[in-house]
Amino acid sequence: MNILEIIEKKRDKEELSKEEIEFFVKGYTNNTIADYQAAALLMAIYLNGMTKKETTDLTIAMANSGERLDLSNLNEIIVDKHSTGGVGDKVSLILLPLVASLGIPVAKMSGRGLGFTGGTVDKLESIPGYKTEVDILQFIKNVEKIGISMISQTLNLAPADKKIYSLRDSISCVENISLIASSIMSKKIASGAQKIVLDVTCGSGAFMKSKEKAEQLANEMIEIGKLANKETVCILTNMDEPLGYAVGNSLEVIEAIHFLQGDMPEDVKEVVLELGAYMIKLAGKGNDIEENKAKMLENIKNRKGYEKLIQMVENQGGDSSYIKDTNQFPKAEYIGNVYSNTSGCIQSMDAKEIGKIVCELGAGRVRKEDKIDNAVGIVLKKKVSDKVEDEEILATIYANSKEKMEKAKERLLKVIKIKEEKVEKPKMILEVME
Amino acid sequence: MNILEIIEKKRDKEELSKEEIEFFVKGYTNNTIADYQAAALLMAIYLNGMTKKETTDLTIAMANSGERLDLSNLNEIIVDKHSTGGVGDKVSLILLPLVASLGIPVAKMSGRGLGFTGGTVDKLESIPGYKTEVDILQFIKNVEKIGISMISQTLNLAPADKKIYSLRDSISCVENISLIASSIMSKKIASGAQKIVLDVTCGSGAFMKSKEKAEQLANEMIEIGKLANKETVCILTNMDEPLGYAVGNSLEVIEAIHFLQGDMPEDVKEVVLELGAYMIKLAGKGNDIEENKAKMLENIKNRKGYEKLIQMVENQGGDSSYIKDTNQFPKAEYIGNVYSNTSGCIQSMDAKEIGKIVCELGAGRVRKEDKIDNAVGIVLKKKVSDKVEDEEILATIYANSKEKMEKAKERLLKVIKIKEEKVEKPKMILEVME
Repeated sequence: MNILEIIEKKRDKEELSKEEIEFFVKGYTNNTIADYQAAALLMAIYLNGMTKKETTDLTIAMANSGERLDLSNLNEIIVDKHSTGGVGDKVSLILLPLVASLGIPVAKMSGRGLGFTGGTVDKLESIPGYKTEVDILQFIKNVEKIGISMISQTLNLAPADKKIYSLRDSISCVENISLIASSIMSKKIASGAQKIVLDVTCGSGAFMKSKEKAEQLANEMIEIGKLANKETVCILTNMDEPLGYAVGNSLEVIEAIHFLQGDMPEDVKEVVLELGAYMIKLAGKGNDIEENKAKMLENIKNRKGYEKLIQMVENQGGDSSYIKDTNQFPKAEYIGNVYSNTSGCIQSMDAKEIGKIVCELGAGRVRKEDKIDNAVGIVLKKKVSDKVEDEEILATIYANSKEKMEKAKERLLKVIKIKEEKVEKPKMILEVME
Repeated sequence: MNILEIIEKKRDKEELSKEEIEFFVKGYTNNTIADYQAAALLMAIYLNGMTKKETTDLTIAMANSGERLDLSNLNEIIVDKHSTGGVGDKVSLILLPLVASLGIPVAKMSGRGLGFTGGTVDKLESIPGYKTEVDILQFIKNVEKIGISMISQTLNLAPADKKIYSLRDSISCVENISLIASSIMSKKIASGAQKIVLDVTCGSGAFMKSKEKAEQLANEMIEIGKLANKETVCILTNMDEPLGYAVGNSLEVIEAIHFLQGDMPEDVKEVVLELGAYMIKLAGKGNDIEENKAKMLENIKNRKGYEKLIQMVENQGGDSSYIKDTNQFPKAEYIGNVYSNTSGCIQSMDAKEIGKIVCELGAGRVRKEDKIDNAVGIVLKKKVSDKVEDEEILATIYANSKEKMEKAKERLLKVIKIKEEKVEKPKMILEVME
């Protein structure tokens, strides 16, 4: 077997065998296959496509390329939750303690943010003392002890995916459904979950801009899940405007805490309840979706979800006094409002643009090695479909430089589109695919 | 402009502009574009194709990537001749002195052999003293003085093509008509010819296995020639069996000398006359093809072609006594015959396989840096359509090791297919395309 023959086969639209795909993934991971050969193969895959079987074989080969987490000692069905990325997405911070408070074990490894979308690990680290880098034995012990642990990817999970993803990024081969699906699923499979709930975001602030594309991606991932024996449910959610009101690391943590205290923005609530209800279902703890949602709302009311968050933070070495009094979170130096210069109804506010503005404020990374500023960000006061009066506050900006504040104000005002026409509140749950 | 956008455009089947193609060729030549990016673009070109305009723009950009020979001082139309490669192809050694003997200036840079096809420069260097590495001023002076010079590529012609060709070879992107056409034509354009006669070989020993593919390639090159203002004629010739009888460097030189002395194998004669007649036509020295052929035959008869060869060899520092007495060429240590083990008619003898056997004997290179053995090779005694008796000699092998001799005998016997059925003499000139 050699890489030239493999490239040739895919170039000529033939199906690659499992062995050929494994040969490529192994060879590329250990550098016996050159970047330019992988690039040619990926472009051929991009243009000629892969069958479901090839996509699954690629996914599993990438999952097997590094360490794999074994969660079988926990003796329970571990359901993973993953989002394809969005702006203002604090769902994991709310949903996972809430689900754990219902007795469903949560063992979650999250990523850091890159580009305009934030990462859960960055948000967790804005809580002073919270240790996201925990060794695996301790991680599993934490889950056994209190039913939840949220950490960063300390294991070398799916290194082949990492390498292939970074190559795809530099050869214009990112936007391919099969390659995106196998990239996501390889990490999920390597991280040891038995079942997976995927939040497939869709809209201006997401990778998938249209519902059709999101459905295609969901279909591929469900199919891979089936062939890899990991039951997968995809929830397609709206990501045209930021989720909730806060965008920025500690600002989002504060919004998540308030949510668990009962102050629930409608859009965040819809997404949290839908995803959670399916996590409960997949965990085998309740087949009735509406009943599952009611259980979750009950644990908001009785504060069990909130208490689980505090317990998790303390168990990871975090200072829970910040959770109990969110005023303790360090504030940005400059806090300024953006005022409307017209009256009407908010038509749209492009989530990606807002993500970029917050990134520019210092909350995100352009390169992996960039340091981030946890205090900066935006808190929206209005959302799409809300009525606005002239000179009313649209949003509050938190910045650590005057110059950045002014720039952010100017850009944000342009992003928030206001017209006289009435607009309906956007539907958050676009589709559930099992 | 950036390479990611260029890859994206070709990936999405859009036409690249001249500026984008130049950006790629320049960037790849000066290493600001990475191998893997070029690989992705080349695979996208392979799969999505190029328009005639794109192919011409690529050709000219590659021609402009290094030095360009200026032959305008010669004040004559310089017609270049090029073959897409074959086995036993000694046409240049015969044709160019013959054409020069008719007063048509020849300024020819040739390549070395790689793989199973031989190179004219290697053949010239088997003449003791012949200097193929000559500086350009001397090269032009030689043409002015005696009307002919044949040297190796001393100039850095089309370095972009060199780099792109070598990359294509390691990513299974060789067999693409547009890319092959632009590779050939870029070197021809850089080498300063005003008009070009191309011998497009076709068959088992050629790059193009079928007439259809050869026609496509010819069409692309003629089109590039038109757009680049270099009139181009393509002669499609048969390369199913070796051309002539001799395969191997000095063995082919000897066959070429004998040809110019009047001993003309039929197949070589057909090819030489056809190509030469069109060179004369393009040079503006005669529009009647049959008349041109007659002039060439005349210069065989009166030995003017042979004398031009001697003059050229002497002018390049070569020892012409070898030309005058070919017995002086060093002989291989072992000379052995291959005998037929049956009687019948020769059906086929795969040119590529014979090229490989000769290469294994030491006459060719596997890697560029390999040294070659000028004395070894094969002289066929029979050709396709010839009748053979049992135990009759099929070929003589010239080797410098006993082991290699035995191996070559065994392999060659397998390659020469003999059956009872009568076979027609193969047609050499398949098509002339202008």
